[in-house]
Amino acid sequence: MILSETVEAKAKLDPENFSLANCIRALSIDAVEAANSGHPGAPMGMADAATVLFRKHLKFDASQPDWPDRDRFVLSNGHASMLLYSLLHLTGYEAMTQEQLRNFRQWGSITAGHPEYGHTPGVETTTGPLGQGFAGAVGMAIAERRLASEFGDDLVDHHTYVFLGDGCLQEGIGQEAASLAGHLGLGKLIVLYDDNEITIDGPTSVSFSEDVLGRFTSCGWHVHRCDGHDPVAIDMAIQAAKAETDKPSIISLKTVIGFGSPNKAGSASSHGSPLGTEEAALAKTALGWSAEPFVIPPSLRQQWLDIGKRGSEARTQWESRLACRPEDVATEFNRRLKAELPQEYATALKLARHALFQQPKKIATRKASQLALEALAPALPELIGGSADLTGSNLTRVNAVDSQYTKERPGRYIGYGVREFGMAAAMNGLSVHGGFIPYGGTFLVFSDYARNAIRLSALMGIGTIYVMTHDSIGLGEDGPTHQPVEHLASLRAMPNLHTFRPADAVEALECWDIAIRSRTTPSLMALSRQDVPQLRTEVTDENLSARGAYIIRQCGQHRDLTLLATGTEVALAVEAAAALQAQGVGVTVVSMPCWDLFEQQPKAYRDEILGKAPRIAVEAAGKFGWTRYVASEEDVIGMNGFGASAPADILYQKFNITGEAIIARAKALLTN
Amino acid sequence: MILSETVEAKAKLDPENFSLANCIRALSIDAVEAANSGHPGAPMGMADAATVLFRKHLKFDASQPDWPDRDRFVLSNGHASMLLYSLLHLTGYEAMTQEQLRNFRQWGSITAGHPEYGHTPGVETTTGPLGQGFAGAVGMAIAERRLASEFGDDLVDHHTYVFLGDGCLQEGIGQEAASLAGHLGLGKLIVLYDDNEITIDGPTSVSFSEDVLGRFTSCGWHVHRCDGHDPVAIDMAIQAAKAETDKPSIISLKTVIGFGSPNKAGSASSHGSPLGTEEAALAKTALGWSAEPFVIPPSLRQQWLDIGKRGSEARTQWESRLACRPEDVATEFNRRLKAELPQEYATALKLARHALFQQPKKIATRKASQLALEALAPALPELIGGSADLTGSNLTRVNAVDSQYTKERPGRYIGYGVREFGMAAAMNGLSVHGGFIPYGGTFLVFSDYARNAIRLSALMGIGTIYVMTHDSIGLGEDGPTHQPVEHLASLRAMPNLHTFRPADAVEALECWDIAIRSRTTPSLMALSRQDVPQLRTEVTDENLSARGAYIIRQCGQHRDLTLLATGTEVALAVEAAAALQAQGVGVTVVSMPCWDLFEQQPKAYRDEILGKAPRIAVEAAGKFGWTRYVASEEDVIGMNGFGASAPADILYQKFNITGEAIIARAKALLTN
Repeated sequence: MILSETVEAKAKLDPENFSLANCIRALSIDAVEAANSGHPGAPMGMADAATVLFRKHLKFDASQPDWPDRDRFVLSNGHASMLLYSLLHLTGYEAMTQEQLRNFRQWGSITAGHPEYGHTPGVETTTGPLGQGFAGAVGMAIAERRLASEFGDDLVDHHTYVFLGDGCLQEGIGQEAASLAGHLGLGKLIVLYDDNEITIDGPTSVSFSEDVLGRFTSCGWHVHRCDGHDPVAIDMAIQAAKAETDKPSIISLKTVIGFGSPNKAGSASSHGSPLGTEEAALAKTALGWSAEPFVIPPSLRQQWLDIGKRGSEARTQWESRLACRPEDVATEFNRRLKAELPQEYATALKLARHALFQQPKKIATRKASQLALEALAPALPELIGGSADLTGSNLTRVNAVDSQYTKERPGRYIGYGVREFGMAAAMNGLSVHGGFIPYGGTFLVFSDYARNAIRLSALMGIGTIYVMTHDSIGLGEDGPTHQPVEHLASLRAMPNLHTFRPADAVEALECWDIAIRSRTTPSLMALSRQDVPQLRTEVTDENLSARGAYIIRQCGQHRDLTLLATGTEVALAVEAAAALQAQGVGVTVVSMPCWDLFEQQPKAYRDEILGKAPRIAVEAAGKFGWTRYVASEEDVIGMNGFGASAPADILYQKFNITGEAIIARAKALLTN
Repeated sequence: MILSETVEAKAKLDPENFSLANCIRALSIDAVEAANSGHPGAPMGMADAATVLFRKHLKFDASQPDWPDRDRFVLSNGHASMLLYSLLHLTGYEAMTQEQLRNFRQWGSITAGHPEYGHTPGVETTTGPLGQGFAGAVGMAIAERRLASEFGDDLVDHHTYVFLGDGCLQEGIGQEAASLAGHLGLGKLIVLYDDNEITIDGPTSVSFSEDVLGRFTSCGWHVHRCDGHDPVAIDMAIQAAKAETDKPSIISLKTVIGFGSPNKAGSASSHGSPLGTEEAALAKTALGWSAEPFVIPPSLRQQWLDIGKRGSEARTQWESRLACRPEDVATEFNRRLKAELPQEYATALKLARHALFQQPKKIATRKASQLALEALAPALPELIGGSADLTGSNLTRVNAVDSQYTKERPGRYIGYGVREFGMAAAMNGLSVHGGFIPYGGTFLVFSDYARNAIRLSALMGIGTIYVMTHDSIGLGEDGPTHQPVEHLASLRAMPNLHTFRPADAVEALECWDIAIRSRTTPSLMALSRQDVPQLRTEVTDENLSARGAYIIRQCGQHRDLTLLATGTEVALAVEAAAALQAQGVGVTVVSMPCWDLFEQQPKAYRDEILGKAPRIAVEAAGKFGWTRYVASEEDVIGMNGFGASAPADILYQKFNITGEAIIARAKALLTN
């Protein structure tokens, strides 16, 4: 039988590594069989490489999953989750018990179908949506270099290892990640590519025939190719990758998917379904594995536990080095890693607020965002900025973060290039790495390109900040391809995301303050291209935007009508309210910079703000979703379709988002 | 002065081409100045290459913009729209008058900020969102080969030319397009890359340092490099590209952005803003251009008009060839190009409906979708299918489209690989090319990856069909990364998109029928992994889903309560309704397979369906948006956050999407 001869030949290359790898294979087979669901093929194929990495290279201490200077291990092909769970179990991560493996993919377990950050100790980032683990790892490697430049190599010096498969490389975001990493010369990023020539639809030749390593070479990578079942070759390749410090490295591992399975190895049938009882047994026989399901023979168990302790000395040495540092350095390092804000922050915020009240600004909210950043960034060395090649439009570059992040020098401003998705995923990597609050800009309409990374920010519960300018037809002449219409609704629909649309300079500052403090919820700022007056002039230290919505104007004694508005349309609502008041109608204007925060307020507050009078909503966007607050979409002054190419003021007129339209609807409502 | 020496040197290479190109440059300068908005840099830099292409290679006839066998020209860097509008004007496209150029970017003009398909004759596809023009062109080239294989090279034999810039290549979708085109060996696809080393944030070296041609070589492309201002070299490069018929070609043109502008050429300042009156005048002087704004000297005007007629002979010859074909072939070809359905279709549909009524099926709606395809595809040779490497999950492959599209043989099923965005954009290209109804599958959650291409389907008003399976927590163990929650709402928020969520096999067939007939609105099918009973058993020829929502059950004589549900939850609602009826409550159950279609119904119909009784909505998805139909989100039996990893039935219980929850809410509502 060909396969078992292959298995035998491979086993001889490094029998110890083979036996250790079989632990991963056996557990992966068992867990997928028990769940009757999952992906055995990739864990079986990559077990040898994973064993080499964990045995000989990865710097980690299973007893301290969050030790800041650990190497990061990212399983970008997240469907191979049993590979990771097996490793965590074998190396002795406390939480990853045998019971958890038995409950793979079951309710309440920490062994979810795909690895989830924050849910499972030892999982560095959520993966499964292909390509994003890789792009996130680029963010981690960016973080490592920057943090090292701030605190020194003796405190920050770790590698980021990525396992990925063909899917991650077929996804466009994989190329964005590769191109950016090569450009920035991220020498401590090492990718192990599971080149098994199989995807779900069959052999990769169905859809994928490129010279992957040629592509990576073109992108400035160090490349290497070896037998993915030859531990000696893998070890040497990783050594070579570590030795190359100016370029990221990719090692293409020629592997057999489902390695060990006599009838399914090398075929798509081992990719995403259990092997089945019979084939599972045959595979174990072929691998020389005779232990009961989920059981690891004691000597192998011990060897793996020892591997889990390999890094403890490095960890204690690191702790000593940190302890030897001047107290203020150690304190600052710990503050950064704990994501606590510095004391200077509150002062900077207060000064910025007062400056706005003293000298109100009539500016675009994107400009107001820049002012907020100018004021706050000096107090926040953890802020690390960037843009997907729209710096001058997003106004994301401010003095304190003006140093460009280059190959030679890891500054605070990252030119992400025209790579919105890669940027968003890299920012997620910066977030989960620790030590940073990343923000990055693009146009709101191109949140579409980055959407699934925004979703992963929300799902992971991390504080990535998205600066999305040109937030409505107000961007004018660029036309409907660039005018967001449905985007506010589609983002508000996403759980655990704060979608902000500030109305003026004060709200922009307030929203930034909330975003900076929100370390377990991502924030997305929808900001205008066009100027708005400063509506908030009454001096207060209270962050009114933090309640999500609040009364910004009361025109007249009575509350005959409530106008709800966001962003640039709040000023329009205030004007219309004044006009209505002149006609004897009492109007309350509510600014709603963040629906998500408003929904979290006590019912009494929400009732008070919404009031009992008829309500009209005003927003230069699609009407979808506003029925949460108004009786019907007829009460929304907004868009029914896509925008058009023309100057902004013409568009507002043509699409009937005007004071007149508000007043007309108000009269229709009040006379009914 | 260095620049004018450069200009002079380039002018000498082919003085006639230079003068013709200056017409483009002058018009682009003038229009951007008049609009005080736009992008002069790229049209000025690419004018020489565009002139060569239109003068010597592009097969087109300005008097017949829609002639089926014309070459396709795609301006993927759509911000260079004035390049295209200038060409259309110069070559004599009737609609593109001087007046239109003067009204560049103004309300009501056909000269929108970015080129818009359907809005401007001669614009082959909407571009601006970077990378998508390129990926769409891949779809056009796929279409050309397939159509040629069906109707012969004498009727279908044209090239697809693409202009693109660095942005299109930085975007991940650019790589997806390149990889797929190389894999399929699309030899008639020719890309001209505006390698001007400038992006918005400055020199490309800020973020982009790869060897682009090396990357394309790795992806199986024929590559070429030349001076983008040397007409002879460009001509030879295009000739070489045409001679290479087994591989797509890319020609990297070293260009100067804003070529001719003494102070802004070669700099980002010429990219996205008007040159300014003074610099515009200096540029014209440097180019030797003395005509009034928007005026083309008569001899140049005539030369360009002659270029516009170059293809008329080829066109008339083509018409003769079509006329010589047997009548049924010509009729069929015209039918395909006009997107009319064949007579056999109605019969196939009727048979499929009756089969379902005769033998009701308890199957997943993804399976029902496959059955529908099996039944309808034989009657529709224009259907061309595919999947982003999830064929076995999406069930998109059926007998009639089982022939794989390969390099050697252009079949009816495309292995798009794990490239959702590239797939969606390529399908848009297939749609606008004409002759095809493309459909392609992925998981609903990964609609995120493809989102902006779905948006472009909607904005262009074309009938691309998205088959999105695994549409809720009902997919089970793969967990929250793979479970759509906010996606239905976010898609319903998009204008001009039909989001379908059929409840059973009959609705799935009906939704397919609507999708196939909808040639100016894209369709997205949200389909289940899990089985549902066939609720529709009453025989009728009427497509009830076409009204968007309809009464599927009346339980009891009175209408005390209305349950609104979609997809897999309709069965749940029907069960709950029966239970409530047993307790004396009259319940009307409304199935809402398509909100968008329902909103288009007359008010009287909508009022009748929604009724006056209290309403509860049931959908295994986020509640956002349902307040359009129910009083508050408390009346929605749905999700409040992300899903989890566990078997589907457990998830429905844990997230409280159950008959009990419906009944409990019903009682709370009815006792109030």
